[in-house]
Amino acid sequence: MVEEKLKSFANVDLPWVREPLSYVLESSGKRVRPGLTLLAGRFYRYNLETLVPMATAIELFHNATLVHDDAVDKALLRRGKTAVNSLWGEGIAVLLGDYLFSISADLVCSIGNFTVMSLFAKTLTEISSGQLRETSGAYSWRQDSEGYYELIYSKTASLFAAATGTGAVLSEAPEEAMAALTSYGKNLGMAFQVVDDVLDFIGDEGEMGKPMGSDLLQGTLTLPIILLMEQHPEDNILRELQEKGGDPLEVARVIEMVRNSPVVEECYRIAGGFSSQACRALEGLPDNASRQSLLDLADYVIERRK
Amino acid sequence: MVEEKLKSFANVDLPWVREPLSYVLESSGKRVRPGLTLLAGRFYRYNLETLVPMATAIELFHNATLVHDDAVDKALLRRGKTAVNSLWGEGIAVLLGDYLFSISADLVCSIGNFTVMSLFAKTLTEISSGQLRETSGAYSWRQDSEGYYELIYSKTASLFAAATGTGAVLSEAPEEAMAALTSYGKNLGMAFQVVDDVLDFIGDEGEMGKPMGSDLLQGTLTLPIILLMEQHPEDNILRELQEKGGDPLEVARVIEMVRNSPVVEECYRIAGGFSSQACRALEGLPDNASRQSLLDLADYVIERRK
Repeated sequence: MVEEKLKSFANVDLPWVREPLSYVLESSGKRVRPGLTLLAGRFYRYNLETLVPMATAIELFHNATLVHDDAVDKALLRRGKTAVNSLWGEGIAVLLGDYLFSISADLVCSIGNFTVMSLFAKTLTEISSGQLRETSGAYSWRQDSEGYYELIYSKTASLFAAATGTGAVLSEAPEEAMAALTSYGKNLGMAFQVVDDVLDFIGDEGEMGKPMGSDLLQGTLTLPIILLMEQHPEDNILRELQEKGGDPLEVARVIEMVRNSPVVEECYRIAGGFSSQACRALEGLPDNASRQSLLDLADYVIERRK
Repeated sequence: MVEEKLKSFANVDLPWVREPLSYVLESSGKRVRPGLTLLAGRFYRYNLETLVPMATAIELFHNATLVHDDAVDKALLRRGKTAVNSLWGEGIAVLLGDYLFSISADLVCSIGNFTVMSLFAKTLTEISSGQLRETSGAYSWRQDSEGYYELIYSKTASLFAAATGTGAVLSEAPEEAMAALTSYGKNLGMAFQVVDDVLDFIGDEGEMGKPMGSDLLQGTLTLPIILLMEQHPEDNILRELQEKGGDPLEVARVIEMVRNSPVVEECYRIAGGFSSQACRALEGLPDNASRQSLLDLADYVIERRK
C-alpha cells in the first residue's frame, strides 16, 4: 500500500517534477523505515488509514535526505544507479529534495496529529544539524567514537526512531510502549548505521551499489577508522590521508588495513550490542507477529550484506 | 518581536549550525513577508501569541528558500554579502536550508493549527516545483509571458499569499476576508517579482547587492526579455545568448537594449496592475491602520529601488 502511494506521488502532472521524482521513487530501496512504522503501529489501535500515509511520508522524507546527501557529497551512485545530482545536476537535486520534503510534510499534515507532525519536523532538525556537523567537520582531528555515535544518531537513528515512534503514537500506544518502540527504532538505527559503515569497507561493490571506501574518500571518519586509529596510534593514517587529500591509493591501503584487522569484528560486536538493546526494548510489549518481525529485523540488520 | 525570535534561533547551542545560521539571519532583509503576516492578522482576532511565531516561521522559511536558490544558481552575492554557498560551499548551503525548513516547520507545529500547517507545506511544494521548472527549463525557447506569470506565482507570490493567508487564518477572519487577504498577498507578490525582474536590468548594483543581468547570466528569462523578444522578433537575442552561453558581453548588450526600450515602462505598467488588484482585494475589509499599511506597501513595492 505504501508502494502504491509512492507511485501515485511519482505520477504527478508536472513533467519537470515527474521525471526525476519517479526516477528516485522507483529505485528499489529496502523500504525498512516505512516497514517500521507499520510494524510499530500494530500493537494497539492498528489503523491503516493513518499508518499508511505516515509510513509513506517517512519514506518520502528519507528519499529527500538521500537526494540532498548525494548533492552535498557529490556522489556518483545511489542504490547502483546514477545519483540525481550526477544525472541532472546539483541544482535539480536540491530542489527535488525540497519537493520531497514538502509532499512528505503535507502528507503528515493530512493525518491531523500534532504529535507526529512535531516529531517529524524535529527529526529534520536533528538530521540536518547532524549533517551540518559532519560536513563542516570533515577530516577533523577531533573525531572520536563518542562524536561518531552522536553523528549516526542524528543522521540515521533519529529517523528510525521517528518511524517507530510515529507508528506508536498513531496506534495510541500507552506511554511506556511508545518509549519502548522509540528506543527499539533508535537502537536498530544505530546498529544499521554501524553495519553500513563496516560494509563500506568489506562489502561487495556490486551489491552495495557504490564504490568501497566512499566515506573515507569524502573525508568522513566512520567507526572502523576510528577504532583503527585507536589501535595504531603510531600509524598516522589520518594525517597521511589529510595531506594527500583522499588519495585513492592511500584509501585503498586503509581499506586493506581495516579488512585485515580485528576492527571489523569489533564493529560487528558493537552493532550486535545495539541490536540486542533494540530487542530488549520490546520485552514489555504484547507478544504478537509484529513483535516477532521486529526481532527478526534486528537480526537481519546485522546479517545483511548490502 | 519577530526580530528577537529570529535572533533566538540564530543563537543555537551548536557551533557548526550557529555560524552560518546567524550569518543568514542577521543579514538585513526587508522582512516584508513577516510584516504581511502581522498586518493581515490585525483585522479580526489579533493574537500575537500565534502571529509572531507564524511571522517568524515565514521569514525562516523564506531564508531557507533563498539559501537553496543561491546554492542552485551558484550565486556569489545575496543582499550585498557573500552568499552562503560561496562562503562555506554548496553542501553547507543545502544542509543549512534544510535546517531552516525544519525549524520553521517545527515553529508552525507549535502554533497548533492544521490549516496553517498544511498551507505552509503546500507552499513549499509550490515553490520547489516552480523552481524545478525554472531550473530544468533554463534557456528554454518556449518561455512566454504566460509561463513567466506561472513561474513567479510559484516562486514568489505563493509565499506572499501564504504570509497574508496564515495571518488571516490565525486571526479567525471570515472566509471572504481570508480570500481577500490571500488575493492581496498573491497580487502583491506578483507586483514585487515583476519589479524585481526589472530592477535586475535597471537597478543600481550597489543598492541591489548583486550584479546586473544576473538572471540572464543564469539563463533565466524574465518579463523584460520576454517582452523585448516580442518587440524584436528579428533580433534573435536568445539564440545568440544560447550559442554564446551567457557571454557577459552579450548580456551587457541585452541590458542596454532593455534600458533603451519601452519594455521597462511596460513592465511597470504590468506591476502596477498587480498592485492595483492587490489594493482592490482589500476593499471589503474593515478600514483600519493595518489596511492603510497594506495599501502603502502596495505603492512601496512599485516605487522601491532595491
